Amino acid sequence: MKKVYFTVGPTQLYPTVKEHIKTAIREDIPSISHRGKGFVDIYKQTTDNLRKLMGIPPDYHIFFLGSATEAMERIIQNTVKSHSFHLVNGAFSKKFFTIASQLGKMAEKIEVPLGRGFDIKSIKISEQMECICITQNETSTGVAMPVEDISYFAMTGPLVALDVVSSAPYVRIDFSLADMTFFSVQKLFGLPAGLGVLIVSPKAFEKSKNLFERGISIGSYHNFLVMEEYSRKYQVHETPNVFGIYLLGKVCNDFLEKGIDTIRKETEEKARVLYEYFDNHVKYKPGVREKKFRSLTTIVIDTQGETAKILPYLERKGFIVSSGYGEFKENQIRIANFPSISLEDAERLLGVFAST
Amino acid sequence: MKKVYFTVGPTQLYPTVKEHIKTAIREDIPSISHRGKGFVDIYKQTTDNLRKLMGIPPDYHIFFLGSATEAMERIIQNTVKSHSFHLVNGAFSKKFFTIASQLGKMAEKIEVPLGRGFDIKSIKISEQMECICITQNETSTGVAMPVEDISYFAMTGPLVALDVVSSAPYVRIDFSLADMTFFSVQKLFGLPAGLGVLIVSPKAFEKSKNLFERGISIGSYHNFLVMEEYSRKYQVHETPNVFGIYLLGKVCNDFLEKGIDTIRKETEEKARVLYEYFDNHVKYKPGVREKKFRSLTTIVIDTQGETAKILPYLERKGFIVSSGYGEFKENQIRIANFPSISLEDAERLLGVFAST
Repeated sequence: MKKVYFTVGPTQLYPTVKEHIKTAIREDIPSISHRGKGFVDIYKQTTDNLRKLMGIPPDYHIFFLGSATEAMERIIQNTVKSHSFHLVNGAFSKKFFTIASQLGKMAEKIEVPLGRGFDIKSIKISEQMECICITQNETSTGVAMPVEDISYFAMTGPLVALDVVSSAPYVRIDFSLADMTFFSVQKLFGLPAGLGVLIVSPKAFEKSKNLFERGISIGSYHNFLVMEEYSRKYQVHETPNVFGIYLLGKVCNDFLEKGIDTIRKETEEKARVLYEYFDNHVKYKPGVREKKFRSLTTIVIDTQGETAKILPYLERKGFIVSSGYGEFKENQIRIANFPSISLEDAERLLGVFAST
Repeated sequence: MKKVYFTVGPTQLYPTVKEHIKTAIREDIPSISHRGKGFVDIYKQTTDNLRKLMGIPPDYHIFFLGSATEAMERIIQNTVKSHSFHLVNGAFSKKFFTIASQLGKMAEKIEVPLGRGFDIKSIKISEQMECICITQNETSTGVAMPVEDISYFAMTGPLVALDVVSSAPYVRIDFSLADMTFFSVQKLFGLPAGLGVLIVSPKAFEKSKNLFERGISIGSYHNFLVMEEYSRKYQVHETPNVFGIYLLGKVCNDFLEKGIDTIRKETEEKARVLYEYFDNHVKYKPGVREKKFRSLTTIVIDTQGETAKILPYLERKGFIVSSGYGEFKENQIRIANFPSISLEDAERLLGVFAST
């Protein structure tokens, strides 16, 4: 039986990906030189498509990394001399905080219980903070920050770093409010893992330049200055994941052809159906109580400790969903609502749930 | 016309790779969780195969990175507090030196002209050096350090870091002489780019632990301690290039079935044929004059400024070779002698050369 992956990443491949892989092999994409015209064309295509799809301004830089985790490290390394500020409400926002500490920074955090959002108006950010690190969509708990809330931080002065790993490109990003935005491709883009994307504003780029000029180490081959130097030539310093960059460009193109508005509408419709079902379920309820903080792309459900029963049951029916994260491993499941999944898939999944 | 890539990486896919990619897609490898049993099995298989193939001792750690360039950064970050020493004779050994400098270390180097090897006995290494960085096979110039020479450095005291990017697994590595050994998969393994492998001795691991305990930052998610913690569970901290790790395991298995001795013999036979041809060519001669320093896997040929004429000619005949590197772009070509290339391919290439 063919399985459907409702997992929160890695996940179901976007339906066109298998065909793109075949084409790539036929066209020798994994063999071409990363210094030649063939790669330059791929790089251009992928970044052009990303800009169009996500509305990335022309003066913002797009850098390719190994993972979103790497993006966290590079953001701290390149733009924080001493102080970073972190909004922590789950494993991935905590990871961002940990990375800053590991790099020897004075990382400060405000923390709310898992499953909760932030009352942003109550957050005071001291003047010395250089970067505010926000996990817009917490893959571990299914809490999302409403995009309106992001603008609050942009007014405060420091740079704003935005983790949209499991919400891009669904989430509408106002890039004038986000200096560094990052995601990885094994989530909503429905691609094999191994590629992270970091979008950097001119202001954040200037900060890294400023640190560099003051003799502060901003890392080596993946510092913003080196990455910018190569991206200007539509290249990457190291031999990059050429295959991944190619596939990302192709899927962006598919998304553009379908229309991002259609993808957003479909995402919202599927989320509505999924949440409605669990809001009315006698036993399994959405893990995020407050509706305004519910992620539409990462749907977390409390299972009353029955995760270990639900997962194998669903798998036998052909559906793979994620377990809860960390301390919620046994008490929650996480259902991806990514573009790879159709409304029919979601309805079939719920049908199976109804017969548990 | 189907092309044959004699390029020095990315290169011709190893003949079995296309089939492995098909199988991976059929088995949903890009969709499986990097925290589940499926991935653990893949990780175990790949590292077991690598150990067998390359003779990696059981107490040496195997870490997966995004690229060999990343390996250079992580080596310096994790094992050098202040002083690193670099043997520089090409672009990639120079890159290693540059990375150490960018990370704020006192990087020292000994440099010989491009195309030349080192008279190792004449190299004096001061006591304060913490790591000696050796590029065993310089992909930019085709100079290789004879493996016997490596033992000289192991006697001197500091850690030894060994770049075998374009010679592994052909090169026989005595791991008791090399504390950190690294390569990437788009060279002799004939795989798509986007994955680096770093092999770390207990001694190098202890050094990173020691720096960490003294409060010196050794990086974040890719520091040796974090990577070891996850590798013990057959996992990776971030979502890794699962597809790449899977394919590497499969190709290692193919190499094991063929036999590494057979692969070595074939490599040597192809190298003999290629060098003999160019040693006797009236115009195009091997770029490395001294035979003991000639790489058998990266064969560099002086073209008397005719590279721009040779490359398109070969391409029309179905052969892609690499141009010279950097200042030799117009004056050299580089021919990969990797396992993806058969003796027949090499002979066909030379046949085409004969008719230039």
